[in-house]
Amino acid sequence: MQLHRGFGAGAMADPVNRRIILARRPDGIPRPEHFELVETPPGEPGPGEILIRNRYLSVDPAQRGWANDAPNYSPPVALGEVMRAMAVGEVVASRHPDYRPGEYLTGMFGWQDYCLAAADRLWFRVDPAVAPISTALGVLGLNGLTAYFGLLEIGQPAQGETVVVSTGAGAVGSAVGQIARIQGCRTVAITGSAEKAAMCRTVYGYDAAIDYRAEGDLDAALAAGCPDGVDVYFDNVSGAISDVVLRHLALGARVVICGTASQASWDPHPLGPRPERHLLVKRARMQGLLIFDFADRFDEARRRLAAWLDAGKLVYREDVRDGIESAPAALTALYAGENTGKMVIRL
Amino acid sequence: MQLHRGFGAGAMADPVNRRIILARRPDGIPRPEHFELVETPPGEPGPGEILIRNRYLSVDPAQRGWANDAPNYSPPVALGEVMRAMAVGEVVASRHPDYRPGEYLTGMFGWQDYCLAAADRLWFRVDPAVAPISTALGVLGLNGLTAYFGLLEIGQPAQGETVVVSTGAGAVGSAVGQIARIQGCRTVAITGSAEKAAMCRTVYGYDAAIDYRAEGDLDAALAAGCPDGVDVYFDNVSGAISDVVLRHLALGARVVICGTASQASWDPHPLGPRPERHLLVKRARMQGLLIFDFADRFDEARRRLAAWLDAGKLVYREDVRDGIESAPAALTALYAGENTGKMVIRL
Repeated sequence: MQLHRGFGAGAMADPVNRRIILARRPDGIPRPEHFELVETPPGEPGPGEILIRNRYLSVDPAQRGWANDAPNYSPPVALGEVMRAMAVGEVVASRHPDYRPGEYLTGMFGWQDYCLAAADRLWFRVDPAVAPISTALGVLGLNGLTAYFGLLEIGQPAQGETVVVSTGAGAVGSAVGQIARIQGCRTVAITGSAEKAAMCRTVYGYDAAIDYRAEGDLDAALAAGCPDGVDVYFDNVSGAISDVVLRHLALGARVVICGTASQASWDPHPLGPRPERHLLVKRARMQGLLIFDFADRFDEARRRLAAWLDAGKLVYREDVRDGIESAPAALTALYAGENTGKMVIRL
Repeated sequence: MQLHRGFGAGAMADPVNRRIILARRPDGIPRPEHFELVETPPGEPGPGEILIRNRYLSVDPAQRGWANDAPNYSPPVALGEVMRAMAVGEVVASRHPDYRPGEYLTGMFGWQDYCLAAADRLWFRVDPAVAPISTALGVLGLNGLTAYFGLLEIGQPAQGETVVVSTGAGAVGSAVGQIARIQGCRTVAITGSAEKAAMCRTVYGYDAAIDYRAEGDLDAALAAGCPDGVDVYFDNVSGAISDVVLRHLALGARVVICGTASQASWDPHPLGPRPERHLLVKRARMQGLLIFDFADRFDEARRRLAAWLDAGKLVYREDVRDGIESAPAALTALYAGENTGKMVIRL
């Protein structure tokens, strides 16, 4: 990543907005060389706008899709644009009647120090009295909401059922496992290191945790961990791990397709064992999840998540890295599974 | 297929039960050499049993799974056993209080002239006044029920949506297309010959029909036939055709997995493009259908199907072959797509 100072040294006495822009389009996993750091003035809010000083930037699996020019929910980030990202920040100037300086907000504010935003880019207020503001990017933010709606609305787990979560120690997965446990389910994590497997058992309360890198035979480990089969599979990875899980579906199983982290690229389209036979024989269902489809119920879900957090039924871990310049490498590390917990950048 | 006469020429004056047994286990599509014709006495009903004289035998895609020793709903047919099959027949002797000689019944009576059955093998009575009794194997039988519940309960089509049916001219597919049309949907058939495509348009009322064998570019043909994307895909085939359809799913699409006719074998497990990305980006759902899950609603569905039949809104075609000895080759022909309409064997 190179540093481009766009506005000369003379502007340095004023606030500087450091922005990480997408400089080259990755083919698969974004790496630091695909980004550049540029500096610009933060700007002044126009009518109806606010200026936000970001405090934490989010690092999320979805960012790969935004950086690549591949079919996705939203158009790709254009070259030269600031990298699209969730962030939480403080209002420092406002020309919008509903927002005042000192308030914390979270939204798609990008990998930058400052975001000049119209109200339609703001998602929700963050109350620092409820929990540390960084949780607005994790367990009380899109990660927690994704776990909540993906598991409860698409997975529809019943008490006593077995719920398997790939990336069971991840920001979404750890919440899925705990919410499933709150529902009275047997919970089984699949994760990528002995350390994470231990964390799944001791921190997130899974009944079983499988370190797929250590298991010579994931199939046997799943059979042992899920003696009655898998009723709900919350899939964050796709690929070889999911191929094995599908062989263990119980009758009437539900597969929540939340992410495809194991697939480095969708061009060319990767091949895998066809799932149709499993779905047919087990009368099972696979369904894709997009959290924004549940936007009108975010407040309800955040209240329940906060109550579980407050009651100690829902815990979280963060992997905090300092400084905006660490964001691109953090994203690469996320895809390598190097994080433990929600990856955030503290500014 | 060889003829084995198990009980000697001396028994020929009495009724003979010709039975087609599974003699060798196929590896994929069953062919005539996997079967043998044997003759035995029909037997006498014991207490609670009835003797049924079969009139029509069914030839169904599901029979491949029953003949193969592969994961399926039900255990495979054992070597030496009569080939499992639906049939419709007449009660000729009864020691069961609920069934009288002269009544027609349909059930899993097998590829044989006579079936000695306990009441738990009987599925439902067939009223010859409603429609020809052979329809109990097709449009008023499991084919029609599969179309009805698969489309309405799993596909859940809404008025104005686009419904695509693979094997659109088949026994199930033709009913799916017509029921979708009754629901006010735009209906598009995929089928395997110009003759069937024409039948889809003129007989079954599809808005568009694609002969995939003639189309150089199925992708373009689907784009033209489904300008707003595919809301419901009723899939009887799996494989290359379905891979193309999945690229055309509309937001929130439902894929009904009813059959996998294009896959000759599931051992080794065939590979295909991974569907997860399509499901995720389109928030779509794939779900397997087993018609017996809806058994408690069969009567309701048969009444509605019969009413549509009576009103001329639902039409059907049969491919009738004569003589029990034609059954094995008929099954092979079914997988080659040589039939037009429901394949039945008239005894």
